[in-house]
Amino acid sequence: MGIQNMPKVALVGCGLVGTSWSIVFGRAGYDVALFDPAHGAAAMSKQTVAKALPDLSTRGLLNGQTVQQVLDRLQPVDRLEDALSGSDYVQESAPERIGIKRQLYVDLDRLAPPSAVIASSTSALPASAFTEKLASRGRCLVAHPINPPHLVPLVELVPAPWTRPDVVERTEALMKSVRQSPIRLSREIDGFVVNRLQSAILAEAFKLVADDICGVGDIDAAVAEGLGMRWFFMGPMETIDLNAPGGVADYCDKLGPMYQELAKEQAAIRPWTKDLVGKIESQRRRFLPESQLAERRAWRDRCLAALAAAKREVGDEYGR
Amino acid sequence: MGIQNMPKVALVGCGLVGTSWSIVFGRAGYDVALFDPAHGAAAMSKQTVAKALPDLSTRGLLNGQTVQQVLDRLQPVDRLEDALSGSDYVQESAPERIGIKRQLYVDLDRLAPPSAVIASSTSALPASAFTEKLASRGRCLVAHPINPPHLVPLVELVPAPWTRPDVVERTEALMKSVRQSPIRLSREIDGFVVNRLQSAILAEAFKLVADDICGVGDIDAAVAEGLGMRWFFMGPMETIDLNAPGGVADYCDKLGPMYQELAKEQAAIRPWTKDLVGKIESQRRRFLPESQLAERRAWRDRCLAALAAAKREVGDEYGR
Repeated sequence: MGIQNMPKVALVGCGLVGTSWSIVFGRAGYDVALFDPAHGAAAMSKQTVAKALPDLSTRGLLNGQTVQQVLDRLQPVDRLEDALSGSDYVQESAPERIGIKRQLYVDLDRLAPPSAVIASSTSALPASAFTEKLASRGRCLVAHPINPPHLVPLVELVPAPWTRPDVVERTEALMKSVRQSPIRLSREIDGFVVNRLQSAILAEAFKLVADDICGVGDIDAAVAEGLGMRWFFMGPMETIDLNAPGGVADYCDKLGPMYQELAKEQAAIRPWTKDLVGKIESQRRRFLPESQLAERRAWRDRCLAALAAAKREVGDEYGR
Repeated sequence: MGIQNMPKVALVGCGLVGTSWSIVFGRAGYDVALFDPAHGAAAMSKQTVAKALPDLSTRGLLNGQTVQQVLDRLQPVDRLEDALSGSDYVQESAPERIGIKRQLYVDLDRLAPPSAVIASSTSALPASAFTEKLASRGRCLVAHPINPPHLVPLVELVPAPWTRPDVVERTEALMKSVRQSPIRLSREIDGFVVNRLQSAILAEAFKLVADDICGVGDIDAAVAEGLGMRWFFMGPMETIDLNAPGGVADYCDKLGPMYQELAKEQAAIRPWTKDLVGKIESQRRRFLPESQLAERRAWRDRCLAALAAAKREVGDEYGR
């Protein structure tokens, strides 16, 4: 994959995820073909990008590229074969339905150049579930972004049992070259890493609310005003490593017994019953009526862009 | 507690936590007495604050107060009774040893004015463990900060079974008046909320490393470059509420089954064996040699201050 020679990226599926990917690759200097089977969706995706870019430019989130430079690299096309033709890397962001992906991957594998990597944005389906019977299945893997990838850099690389190691390595290098933060899983596992970590915290949060220890607003404050202040730039492992004089081993020596005791209590599974979900829903609606969900999402996206920019600036100033 | 009439705060214990508390109360306009049984420690604490304040001022983290205004309110004293005399609120930040706290609380309860609230910064000991036999135990509770409280606003309020409701309410109001973010637990529970949430995510992270699914650096990236980008300003419950068109009930309807399946897998307890801790330690040391722990802590504190300031600015601009 000739990253040095203007590699060509094909984005298949131009919903929210594909659209955001086009910004990631376009601002990194790559030529990007956009395809979506829905008529006009790829062109619409480029229009969405055109509206988003000026703000990203103002915030310094276009890697020094101009809005026009980025836009000029995005090429909506009408046919899948035109998107894949000459591509070095294919990022598939189709709906999360196994039947759709299985059918689509037959075409992707047939039409993409033999040397192209084919990566799926899926958050839940392992690549083995939709690539098993392909002729060149060794070039397929999952590259799961967190939405929207142009603001949230993490990408989980999850190989199927037959994914070739060099394919994972090339994808990792590609992601780094566009300033994403790839992590490599050694093998497929339900929920990958991100959703497993999210699951762990949600399971405990739901229990605390179920038991009336606190409310959903307290959970959010505990993270957003507490734990999340460090996790935003260090993550939980470095956090504990720095929280004891001798590092993480010292930390575990002192606090391991407490965590082990807590783990025993926390192991009990609490079903997400209709009642519990209803309780959480009704508490959330006191903070935010359903009619304001869309407006709050726009607020979230503005905050996310501003804080992503601030984080990049702080990283540039103090190191990462 | 006459917040309107220049309430007086007594800080008992002037280590890292007490020192940071003095900034919280001082910049809010409160008179603060500092006491520590170690000779000279209270005066030393004020000197530490004097060094920290100029940077906080530059970052807009002194609520518009000047460095000198804040400093003038901090009064190191040599005797416990002088610290407590006339106090409205006592924040105890003594070592986390039950024997020390039990003995200390006898003195605090005897010497503090009857109307004063007495709160402990303890992260692990329930107030019931060291206040049971006090004459005025109903005015005691836990007010657990996240370090350092002058940059991380969360405070967990945890009542003992005998803590009076008005004491919790007054402490909550006091914390809000100094721009901290108090959450109220309905009752004592091991680990309170913050350490339970941290425990849940660490337990899963340790398992993923134990099973070689990924390394400690991948865990940190999954949070710092992924989940933590939203958790920094929204928390996990609002995150999922906004991640489905119809809100959290819709989210649970769609993804609940996946999380329930994950929860079953995640329930298994994995002991933090010496081998596992050693593995985590050795992976961390590849990122950061032990000799650089102190330097990295200074980096962490600079980043935390800069990002806390950025978050406040974003909140001022877009709302919270």
